[in-house]
Amino acid sequence: MSKFKIKVYPDGIEGETEEKNTIMKALEELGVELETLCGGAGWCGQCMVKATGGISSPTSNEIRLLGEDKIRDGFRLACQAKIVGNVDIEVPAETRAYMQRILTSGTTIEDAKLNPAVRCSNIVLSFPSLEDQRADLERIEDAINREMTSVKRELLMNLPKVLRDNNFNIEAIFYNNELIEIRRPKNKLLFGVAVDIGTTTVVAYLLDLEDGKSVDVASSMNPQAKRGADVISRIDYASKGGLEELSTIIREEINTLIYELCNKNNIETQDIYDMTVVGNTTMLHLFLRVPPDYIAISPYIPVFSKSLTVTPKELGINTNPNGRCYLLPNISSYVGADTIGMVLSTGLYKEDGVKLALDIGTNGEMVLKDNDRLFSCSTAAGPAFEGANIHYGMRGARGAIDHISIDDGELKIHVIDDVPPIGICGSGLLDAAAVMLELGILDDTGRIVEPKGELFKDLIHNGSYGMDFVLKAYGKEIPINQKDIRELQLAKGAIRAGIEILLEEAGRSIDEIDTVYLAGAFGTFLSPESAIKIGLLPSLPLDRVKSVGNAAGEGAKLTLIDKGYRSIAETTAKEVRYIELSSRKDFQEKFMDAMYFEFAK
Amino acid sequence: MSKFKIKVYPDGIEGETEEKNTIMKALEELGVELETLCGGAGWCGQCMVKATGGISSPTSNEIRLLGEDKIRDGFRLACQAKIVGNVDIEVPAETRAYMQRILTSGTTIEDAKLNPAVRCSNIVLSFPSLEDQRADLERIEDAINREMTSVKRELLMNLPKVLRDNNFNIEAIFYNNELIEIRRPKNKLLFGVAVDIGTTTVVAYLLDLEDGKSVDVASSMNPQAKRGADVISRIDYASKGGLEELSTIIREEINTLIYELCNKNNIETQDIYDMTVVGNTTMLHLFLRVPPDYIAISPYIPVFSKSLTVTPKELGINTNPNGRCYLLPNISSYVGADTIGMVLSTGLYKEDGVKLALDIGTNGEMVLKDNDRLFSCSTAAGPAFEGANIHYGMRGARGAIDHISIDDGELKIHVIDDVPPIGICGSGLLDAAAVMLELGILDDTGRIVEPKGELFKDLIHNGSYGMDFVLKAYGKEIPINQKDIRELQLAKGAIRAGIEILLEEAGRSIDEIDTVYLAGAFGTFLSPESAIKIGLLPSLPLDRVKSVGNAAGEGAKLTLIDKGYRSIAETTAKEVRYIELSSRKDFQEKFMDAMYFEFAK
Repeated sequence: MSKFKIKVYPDGIEGETEEKNTIMKALEELGVELETLCGGAGWCGQCMVKATGGISSPTSNEIRLLGEDKIRDGFRLACQAKIVGNVDIEVPAETRAYMQRILTSGTTIEDAKLNPAVRCSNIVLSFPSLEDQRADLERIEDAINREMTSVKRELLMNLPKVLRDNNFNIEAIFYNNELIEIRRPKNKLLFGVAVDIGTTTVVAYLLDLEDGKSVDVASSMNPQAKRGADVISRIDYASKGGLEELSTIIREEINTLIYELCNKNNIETQDIYDMTVVGNTTMLHLFLRVPPDYIAISPYIPVFSKSLTVTPKELGINTNPNGRCYLLPNISSYVGADTIGMVLSTGLYKEDGVKLALDIGTNGEMVLKDNDRLFSCSTAAGPAFEGANIHYGMRGARGAIDHISIDDGELKIHVIDDVPPIGICGSGLLDAAAVMLELGILDDTGRIVEPKGELFKDLIHNGSYGMDFVLKAYGKEIPINQKDIRELQLAKGAIRAGIEILLEEAGRSIDEIDTVYLAGAFGTFLSPESAIKIGLLPSLPLDRVKSVGNAAGEGAKLTLIDKGYRSIAETTAKEVRYIELSSRKDFQEKFMDAMYFEFAK
Repeated sequence: MSKFKIKVYPDGIEGETEEKNTIMKALEELGVELETLCGGAGWCGQCMVKATGGISSPTSNEIRLLGEDKIRDGFRLACQAKIVGNVDIEVPAETRAYMQRILTSGTTIEDAKLNPAVRCSNIVLSFPSLEDQRADLERIEDAINREMTSVKRELLMNLPKVLRDNNFNIEAIFYNNELIEIRRPKNKLLFGVAVDIGTTTVVAYLLDLEDGKSVDVASSMNPQAKRGADVISRIDYASKGGLEELSTIIREEINTLIYELCNKNNIETQDIYDMTVVGNTTMLHLFLRVPPDYIAISPYIPVFSKSLTVTPKELGINTNPNGRCYLLPNISSYVGADTIGMVLSTGLYKEDGVKLALDIGTNGEMVLKDNDRLFSCSTAAGPAFEGANIHYGMRGARGAIDHISIDDGELKIHVIDDVPPIGICGSGLLDAAAVMLELGILDDTGRIVEPKGELFKDLIHNGSYGMDFVLKAYGKEIPINQKDIRELQLAKGAIRAGIEILLEEAGRSIDEIDTVYLAGAFGTFLSPESAIKIGLLPSLPLDRVKSVGNAAGEGAKLTLIDKGYRSIAETTAKEVRYIELSSRKDFQEKFMDAMYFEFAK
């Protein structure tokens, strides 16, 4: 058999191939992979290339899918066109397999491929006749060269009308190779939503699944908060008959966000075919209306922890009812899919070295990566970092003192929106403690004491629990009292003890940690210096500490854009060794130690 | 490694096996296969055997699943117990893989194995603890040694309660390896319903899927009949807005039958987990509420022809909502799942030789088996065989003349229930024509003429369409007129022409047919002699003609009892070569020929 020469542009690759090979085969041999949905069956039209030279005549599939204009311009389907002489082939960027790299917003360190679970393809079917009496469904199966093992009745109910109204030229929507919808041609409009259900806030990201770009984001407070601020009180409420209510209101809230996103961007909810969801284990149970009761009771057993795929229809979610909704896997009752999202978006799952990722809230979830091992735990930090149980505590909103530092011997106090302060948020409290330690106003045991010198002595007042440290800004005073410091000590002690346990499990020391990722709102706004100073974080060079924003939400986006991340999530969730701190005798000791400020040294 | 001697009872097989093999392994080596749902993982308890001699101590699984009494009596789980010395093993009948042969009722020539799609297994789980915090779902997955790719939310919603209410001792219901329900232990109550949706009647069979036995049967008229007697008029009604109605009333009718079966046999509809359905292609479209419009319009395209699995929930069928409903595959728009049912229950799909199966009604569906080839067609016989369009025609009910013969020169007329006749049914009409031919009252072209002799001359009267042949019984007269004979000729001509076309396709002649199966009510009640005499059936020795009753319904039962029949049905439906008669020029000619009575000779 003859061999012919091939040149590939713009790559500049040259090579040879055997006569009658398809362009696709020839390119494959040269290491150039093409996009294809039909596996080379000739119906998806995705493997378009420009070819000049010895090429067979266009097939009917090519004429149908490319149109005569494109054919005239030299475009061909690589899976159809056969090589019959020397040939030059130009491979457009969009034809290359998974080469459309996109960068998701935020601090995601990962490039995602465009490889969504849901795909759209234009299919032109042959017309039925007395010689070709295949059923509508079988006609499609044959065209896509795939037998469908499960077919939805809804699809069949509309099938004959859609086919005939559109002259047997239709768009097929696939979800992981399963045909989920046949619709009129819509220029492949295809969207997805990534949702992060936080205990406090809900965030929804709208993504275009044809180009992988983020379209918009919407967020709101989790309406379940009125039934309890933390997961334990929500579980309690659910177990006393409130499950249906908690489930309904979070789904309605998500519908509101979806509606807002669609409305603002002029798209139809019907064109959203996929949704990915992260959240802590309790949030995901409530979302599905699955009783979370035993999460709160020792030995803390969730009903499910693996990833689940459900339909928006069964949940009453207003996206396309034939679409799907994918929940990322959880690790345990207290290390949820949000943590897995963080592991994905930080790239932790694949990084070498010793790395620590932390999401600090009422609970502190943390994952330690030690080369090919993963350890995880969750510690009940309490709500101090979120401003609760602190006398003047508040969330990081307008009027909150969020940063304090000593600059040129002067106390600098920053208030969000530069208004007279009404309280202090987690990052401010953290800074305050660091400053107090620096000034000698706080001793190693956490007792507020008068400073040795005169400097700042006027900021120490007598208060109801001992001494108060008073922050003055814009003519207002915000005192931090002894009880506030004790709350802070409990919180930082719990987190730090968790870190110590993970290190111990891995057999690693602090200075072996090469990177610390801080996720979530508190992780983004806290001062790493202060966190290290008070011993919340281990003493490490500052350049090893990185804030990664809403790492959980970014993880949800990754699994939406590239389904490959779902397998990674599932494998990772199984690989993580979860350490149950409540069953460890050494945890209480480490916790007591870590509460003291000397621990930081 | 040492080898030990094994004796198997009651088989009497003797052999050897290596030390530490499980009993299951040892038996396998000797060709004795055991029932197992868990594949030897030790949780299903189905591989119970009695063992005496050198056997390892009982495992915790064995103690849990068999109980101490059984263990004391020498019972063991073959997958758990290991061989440590010479041993005698008694294998109870119920432990043997698929050895429970049952004979379904009716004329099924096939022994079915008990191998339903739905299975129930008792599972005893370990209790959760701080050292074993697996989620409820994952605990089950581990116990059954199987990862579930799709989990229903409904299952999760009830899971924690069912587990804890029953002390982690539960029954798991699987459908084709998919876990569909976790329930309290119910002694494995497990039922299925096989439904035959005929254009005229609906039949539902209740089967016990734990022993494969038929429990009961219920039937009723198809309520769609009020919207049209035949499929074409039903399609017409559906296409004009009546689809929802036709779909709803057939499902309600099936619910009524199911309720009747459950009520009478004191079982719960919740314990019915599987349902199989046969019917013609239109009936199955209507059942699913899928528009059948294009079945009636050339080129006669159904929406689906393959087998489908749906949920009773989506159809509003009152069986267990977590169960399934399996529709057998169709061959074409006019050869439906009922024909496939017939192919299964007659064993046609596997038989050697040349065989013909016919289901004669308003349409005549027929399948010709020629060794490894299958041919099929459908002919519009018209309703004559069902008593319609015949002046005194009626269904085979009380008061219908159903059999006529000449005995000792006398005309014997049989009336159903031995009452004065009010009409004549299909089998009676067939006999009448045969008798008329024998007496020379009917000429070869189908004209009613006076007999040559005086005998029976008094039975010929002048009528409105020419001569009438008058049947007298119980003092009543039922005349058959010339138009009735023409209707009969059209009907028998269509069927016979179909047979001729199939034979021609196969390249076979009439005398090569070794068996003719006659299915359905008409097929059961007609006289094969008369059918041959008038040329409806080819001239063959009578012992080659067999009536097989409700062969379609029997086929549905087979797929319920043994899911292996589903694969056979699916493979067969694809293998059958469907001959579209309307596109064949030679059909009209053969039809014209076959209308004449001389054709029979």
